[in-house]
Amino acid sequence: MIKLSVMYPYSPEAHFDHAYYRDRHLPMLKERMGEHCRYYTIDQGISSVAPGSAPAFIAMCHVYSDSLESLMAGLAPHSAELAADIPNFTNITPVRQVSEVVVDRS
Amino acid sequence: MIKLSVMYPYSPEAHFDHAYYRDRHLPMLKERMGEHCRYYTIDQGISSVAPGSAPAFIAMCHVYSDSLESLMAGLAPHSAELAADIPNFTNITPVRQVSEVVVDRS
Repeated sequence: MIKLSVMYPYSPEAHFDHAYYRDRHLPMLKERMGEHCRYYTIDQGISSVAPGSAPAFIAMCHVYSDSLESLMAGLAPHSAELAADIPNFTNITPVRQVSEVVVDRS
Repeated sequence: MIKLSVMYPYSPEAHFDHAYYRDRHLPMLKERMGEHCRYYTIDQGISSVAPGSAPAFIAMCHVYSDSLESLMAGLAPHSAELAADIPNFTNITPVRQVSEVVVDRS
């Protein structure tokens, strides 16, 4: 299983509309990707390990696909549309990375 | 659901023993945390979104607990032992953060 993580770094100037991200952006991504998106998860950053500290990332999503080829096939035709939606919920440039899921829910 | 993400930044000088992490470190963490760890996942970084590029993080784990209190109760008694095991698999200082799971497998 392959996982695309999109991670939005925290900064004091950052804004992030978690409701839009949850209710509009990710459902749109899943609809566009179709069967190429097995499922996705969304995290809202709370803190570092010290209570009350700022988290490294204010929000993250993780998009799971069967393979790198499937992930790219699902995203490539819609990348411009998805990128154009980002200003609707944040002013942050996300960090993105592709990982292999080594252990899934042990 | 609460999630602790431990993320190991990539650098050219970094080394990371993925087998030790998978077979020894995380199983030890889960054993020590007991019921406070619902489950965990492990990712191995492949790349950024450009094929062949370096990933932001060479490895990540995500530890899921029912609540922040449960997470801390599970980790606090074992944090010194867990930290002492880190040099056995890497020379990287990880980024750690606590998140709320907003959407779990949509």
